[in-house]
Amino acid sequence: MKVSFIGSGNVATHLAYAFHGLNYSIAQVYSPKLQNAQLLAQEVQAQAITDIAELDVADIYFIAVKDSAIATVAAQLADLNIQGIVVHTSGSTDINALATASPYYGVFYPLQTFSKNQPLDFKNIPLLLEANDQSTLQQLDQLARGLSQQVYHYSSAQRRSLHLAAVLACNFSNYLYSLADQYLNEQGVDFNLLKPLILETAHKSQNNAPVHVQTGPAVRHDQTILDMHMQMLNDQPQLQQIYQLLSSGIMQLHS
Amino acid sequence: MKVSFIGSGNVATHLAYAFHGLNYSIAQVYSPKLQNAQLLAQEVQAQAITDIAELDVADIYFIAVKDSAIATVAAQLADLNIQGIVVHTSGSTDINALATASPYYGVFYPLQTFSKNQPLDFKNIPLLLEANDQSTLQQLDQLARGLSQQVYHYSSAQRRSLHLAAVLACNFSNYLYSLADQYLNEQGVDFNLLKPLILETAHKSQNNAPVHVQTGPAVRHDQTILDMHMQMLNDQPQLQQIYQLLSSGIMQLHS
Repeated sequence: MKVSFIGSGNVATHLAYAFHGLNYSIAQVYSPKLQNAQLLAQEVQAQAITDIAELDVADIYFIAVKDSAIATVAAQLADLNIQGIVVHTSGSTDINALATASPYYGVFYPLQTFSKNQPLDFKNIPLLLEANDQSTLQQLDQLARGLSQQVYHYSSAQRRSLHLAAVLACNFSNYLYSLADQYLNEQGVDFNLLKPLILETAHKSQNNAPVHVQTGPAVRHDQTILDMHMQMLNDQPQLQQIYQLLSSGIMQLHS
Repeated sequence: MKVSFIGSGNVATHLAYAFHGLNYSIAQVYSPKLQNAQLLAQEVQAQAITDIAELDVADIYFIAVKDSAIATVAAQLADLNIQGIVVHTSGSTDINALATASPYYGVFYPLQTFSKNQPLDFKNIPLLLEANDQSTLQQLDQLARGLSQQVYHYSSAQRRSLHLAAVLACNFSNYLYSLADQYLNEQGVDFNLLKPLILETAHKSQNNAPVHVQTGPAVRHDQTILDMHMQMLNDQPQLQQIYQLLSSGIMQLHS
């Protein structure tokens, strides 16, 4: 089984490492920047290429580029008469973006947040699959089950919803962590103190409906504390706006 | 060492269990509702009382009631000529709220989110202490170190900052989890799929500055996805407002 990667970013890197670890042969890694292609290719004993036209025959091609570049890549692949499976790894891009790339196309979306220097075990990462026909879906399914215990067949619309929910629950949470970090820095307080609380908050959501374990001044409708916090943020209008909007959201949800 | 609790909510319950587990004698548990007082008192072999005037002599009294009730409790204690240490457990209430409650007073603030049915190990919970004199602080310190490996002496102002940061990073994150849960429910998608991602996001913050591991469409300035998400939320103005505000915050922070 020969796998090639178009893209060398976080998702490509983690997937290539994982397949390499499972003894799949990684054939080629494409990136417009030779250095980027080489960096990954070396690690997984693949060939680095900087021109998509140099792609050789492979069983499956992973397009792991930013969403806005998927259509361009698909158009370039259309000229290559590819007979292998072509998948993208995007939560928000429709399967049909690949309709001209190959007769066999699909989606292989790992629902996880990838950072290059953070090793990941795919075992517990949900993989959401979609394909243009049953046989392609079965091949993707087999490939996915080698990586993860959580493999799902989801439509483009469902995957899109999940991606949006992931932005809400995860990207935005991380942004709130950043804001807390920044604020504590300004106040001369160590952000490390918050870490056990951040972890416990996430852990609680694993076994409880989050709405049932909401804590804090807003859910208690504790107006004195809410007013005090707003006043403490008087010189930070942006933080104040976020505090106001999310607190009133919590109060409304728990009214 | 005799410990009494004024309040029988989440914080009182977890602290009373923990001290009971360390073989401290829990003397009394006060709640205006007998049933609530009894529920906790039975578990820790204490006496349930519903009138603060019934408080016996103890070495330390924990006021673990909602912030807005601390002043009232302090005023009631002022009439009892208490000689033990009186502490509150609030992140946002100044130590001086207890100035009339006893000659020896302070703050014993566990920085954690407490839910009654979620058992907690205090070992890794930061305990923030403050007292009106050195000897009281030392006694609180000794008590705290029996519970936790993370004991800090913090001023009321620092504690207040930390509590505000905890609201941002934790209460608001949990609210975002709720919104994601609700949204996925409406779309017929299983919230369980998001759970590994929520956990990984929190884990990443333990070893990385959150600002350095931000992911998602906003940090990539991916306007196509941002527009698509806003459109998907067209019938949910509140969610849309949150999405807009937090996304533009991320873009600004990473501009």
